[in-house]
Amino acid sequence: MSERLTIIGVGLIGGSFALALKAAGYPGEIVGCGRREAALRRAVDLGAIDRWSTDCAAAVAGADIVFLAVPMLAMRPLLEQLADALPREAIVTDAGSSKGSFVRDAAVLGNPRRVVPGHPIAGTERSGVEAAFATLFVEHRVILTPTRETGEEAVRRVTQLWEMTGAIVETTDVATHDRLLAATSHLPHLLAFGLVATLADMREQDDIFRYAAGGFRDFTRIASSDPLMWRDVCIANRDAVLEVLVRYQVDLQQLTELVRQSDGDGLLALFQRAKRARDAHLGDPGSDGR
Amino acid sequence: MSERLTIIGVGLIGGSFALALKAAGYPGEIVGCGRREAALRRAVDLGAIDRWSTDCAAAVAGADIVFLAVPMLAMRPLLEQLADALPREAIVTDAGSSKGSFVRDAAVLGNPRRVVPGHPIAGTERSGVEAAFATLFVEHRVILTPTRETGEEAVRRVTQLWEMTGAIVETTDVATHDRLLAATSHLPHLLAFGLVATLADMREQDDIFRYAAGGFRDFTRIASSDPLMWRDVCIANRDAVLEVLVRYQVDLQQLTELVRQSDGDGLLALFQRAKRARDAHLGDPGSDGR
Repeated sequence: MSERLTIIGVGLIGGSFALALKAAGYPGEIVGCGRREAALRRAVDLGAIDRWSTDCAAAVAGADIVFLAVPMLAMRPLLEQLADALPREAIVTDAGSSKGSFVRDAAVLGNPRRVVPGHPIAGTERSGVEAAFATLFVEHRVILTPTRETGEEAVRRVTQLWEMTGAIVETTDVATHDRLLAATSHLPHLLAFGLVATLADMREQDDIFRYAAGGFRDFTRIASSDPLMWRDVCIANRDAVLEVLVRYQVDLQQLTELVRQSDGDGLLALFQRAKRARDAHLGDPGSDGR
Repeated sequence: MSERLTIIGVGLIGGSFALALKAAGYPGEIVGCGRREAALRRAVDLGAIDRWSTDCAAAVAGADIVFLAVPMLAMRPLLEQLADALPREAIVTDAGSSKGSFVRDAAVLGNPRRVVPGHPIAGTERSGVEAAFATLFVEHRVILTPTRETGEEAVRRVTQLWEMTGAIVETTDVATHDRLLAATSHLPHLLAFGLVATLADMREQDDIFRYAAGGFRDFTRIASSDPLMWRDVCIANRDAVLEVLVRYQVDLQQLTELVRQSDGDGLLALFQRAKRARDAHLGDPGSDGR
């Protein structure tokens, strides 16, 4: 008997997950679930899912694995709805950016052995199934954060699925994930949204954006991301986001003092330290900026 | 008699300016000047310049136009050296990111009619003549900021040169330029350098950079820029940088409060406003993030 996978939330992530599995020859049936029929029909047309329902209880009937790719604040009401409908042995995993909140929300299922919190470190600033593509996860990390209660077999099966998409699966604990992602993903999104909002409020805003160069375009690309998704992330991962946000502001205050005092040595040392760290860890050897 | 152009500072900008002019069939001689002989020899090999000198007085002898593409804090000592050596009718222009400081520094020449402050809104995070390429300025804006004393003929000739490189030339006043560039370029560089430095100081820094996705890579690309150039920009354009830096911090403090209070409506409104502004002004229609 081949497996049945239900994907709830067939957008950029859910849609790409489905497309990647199909491309890799996933032998089971993929059922899509979401609120917008048009998007689900489009997901069928794109070959991502085999069939769909807008009723999540119907969508998970007979499912072996349920993959949740909805905004973080939609998780709790969704999981409450699923609590009764979910087949007892179904594995539940997700793609959310905040793992602590997901573990708390998933407690309503009463079956923590079958819950595998997960987060693919991949995405684009676009959203919706139209933006999905089969290679989104290739050579990208997927972080699974099993708790002490999560069953090994459940982790193994979720790992297998992700590996079919070309992703590199790693595991860490919930708190480490949330702290690291707050720093590398949630904080930069806040800073970028904040910068564009600050500039949009300035009197010369038309000129400001006209004078923006490629560096600004790159720097603010993530400010074109889905506002609703990022609102949810900020609230779901609030404590870790606040911690790094406050820390960054302290550092920014020191940086401001260096500028105020025209402290060239201090500025140079800071910029060199940053450049060294970035070049060492994230150099773009193939990028020539053209 | 064909024109003689002297480029002082044959790095990414000076080298690309020379390569672009050569590619466009510039009929004059291009003389390079810098401190490192190896780089100047390389610039000859790359076809950017015809000959070179490490002595700036020798390099500007007989020059019709002198193009300065050195870090901002190198401008004043350079201009002091040039004051006696410069041919009386030579036009002096520059490519610096801060125009107020350049105008002040260039006063030592005692010939403001021939000084055309300029700034190409183009660049990459790389530096040096090895990173130069002929199309760097194509369809990029070059902002000229003539003062009331600048001569029209000088502006016209500098405009012609830039247009040969494929750039779009605009003019504005010094203060507007410095304020706009502080917002769109200098501030983002500070924020990116600052973010990478903050993360590099965190205990889990190896993991942090390992978990970074494409968004973080884009966001921090400018933190791989030349630290010395950016130290100079921050100091040269200090007042305008400080103003927008302080303003940004006030806004960031408000954003932090929204997160602290889990104010979803406030966060959503801010993110939506930012996304609308960015998509309207800087949408990447061709980008699919793949």
